Amino acid sequence: MSELDDDTSVTEVGEGLWSASINPRWNVGSAPNGGYLIALGARAMLAASGRPDPLTVTAHYVSPPEPGPVAVSTEVVRAGRRYATVTAAIRQGDRERVRLIGATGDLAAQSGPTRIGAAAPRARAPLACATAAGERAPEVARRYELRLDPSGGESEVEGPCEVSGWIRLSDGAPPSVLALLAFSDAFPPAVLAALDVGWVPTVELTVHVRARPEPGWVLGRFRTRFLLDGLFEEEGELWSEDGRLLAQSRQLALILPRR
Amino acid sequence: MSELDDDTSVTEVGEGLWSASINPRWNVGSAPNGGYLIALGARAMLAASGRPDPLTVTAHYVSPPEPGPVAVSTEVVRAGRRYATVTAAIRQGDRERVRLIGATGDLAAQSGPTRIGAAAPRARAPLACATAAGERAPEVARRYELRLDPSGGESEVEGPCEVSGWIRLSDGAPPSVLALLAFSDAFPPAVLAALDVGWVPTVELTVHVRARPEPGWVLGRFRTRFLLDGLFEEEGELWSEDGRLLAQSRQLALILPRR
Repeated sequence: MSELDDDTSVTEVGEGLWSASINPRWNVGSAPNGGYLIALGARAMLAASGRPDPLTVTAHYVSPPEPGPVAVSTEVVRAGRRYATVTAAIRQGDRERVRLIGATGDLAAQSGPTRIGAAAPRARAPLACATAAGERAPEVARRYELRLDPSGGESEVEGPCEVSGWIRLSDGAPPSVLALLAFSDAFPPAVLAALDVGWVPTVELTVHVRARPEPGWVLGRFRTRFLLDGLFEEEGELWSEDGRLLAQSRQLALILPRR
Repeated sequence: MSELDDDTSVTEVGEGLWSASINPRWNVGSAPNGGYLIALGARAMLAASGRPDPLTVTAHYVSPPEPGPVAVSTEVVRAGRRYATVTAAIRQGDRERVRLIGATGDLAAQSGPTRIGAAAPRARAPLACATAAGERAPEVARRYELRLDPSGGESEVEGPCEVSGWIRLSDGAPPSVLALLAFSDAFPPAVLAALDVGWVPTVELTVHVRARPEPGWVLGRFRTRFLLDGLFEEEGELWSEDGRLLAQSRQLALILPRR
């Protein structure tokens, strides 16, 4: 069992109702990281639908949860042959925290044509990259070994903001499909390469899981091109060590002034 | 009133309950186009939340609707100062057709920094492009004037599949934020440039509306890079005539054999 498995575990307590607990070791400041929360919601969606893989998951972050117990309610909207459509709501008391919708399926049973129209990104080897976690890093940063490619940390004045590097779970557990969801929101926001901003809460995060990961490092590349009136997108890709695409992510986030 | 306004109109019939009607003039074969359906669902979400703009909308296509009446149920999960989180479910009888979640707000009231890290795509003028609608085009193709850039229709063997061109509503109505949602699924699938496939149903479509459109043509560019075991993503951008980003879309879709 990995820390991520432990801290996303769900127990069925009724028809479409699950109990879970938010562990503060995934916090950024006083609020849990969004990647951890989408993994927790997806864990319940997989259990509710009886499928092994989250093909696509969308999370809307409604209000910041506190550490401690949560109730997750799930609805299997449709259970099809190829995939199931599932929703989840994470609640604390009468406060909703995260609402999710996704399609769950079985990537190993998926069949059809393959055509790859883009090369895997070139990256320095993990050990040639810089360790991201400093003394002032948030609690969640200790859950990951994150090695940022220094060439991806600076952005041109007119170019996209980019951040790239290698990631793995710091407890040594191999990456899982749920870890890919967590990794999609585990890097420092790419927009920080260009702007000194206060707080960048995610409105919406969608992750497409395209392949199951194998043991080893995962290469992440995240890019923001359009910051318009304080709203920005961040598009991400996760790749295996041997250059297979594992996941694609995109989020819409807000820049808020320092509090 | 445009055809799109007419055919996405919703009437409140109860608390969070709306009636609407699916017009078959938006069909592809016997099923309504996904862009039309996401616009219809978003129309109810805007009405339910009392906000003018869909900042981000995600639609999961659960089962193909038939033309005729639908019931749309909405839930305002949270009404915040900057945006509201809203869900919608489109149903016919006891069959659910589309489930949506989104954030609605007011783009005109949005404030914060702007930083644009990518240039608008170069494109031929609309009148130098090819009209897409032929005699065998689906019914929905008559709702749009679509002029495809011939240089964007072919793809390199190893490159991404791309399609680009100009679009506007064929009834002469200016584009709206709902039209941007519809335009995000109105072009021929980019993957058709590389593969002769049967049916490419969308699993999930997410559109971020980044700016309100002005009267005129809208430039669309859509790209598929990763077709893996019959599952592919299509990423899209919509731009104004004067080079402003209007919307970003991404969908996950399936390739199914010809029926």
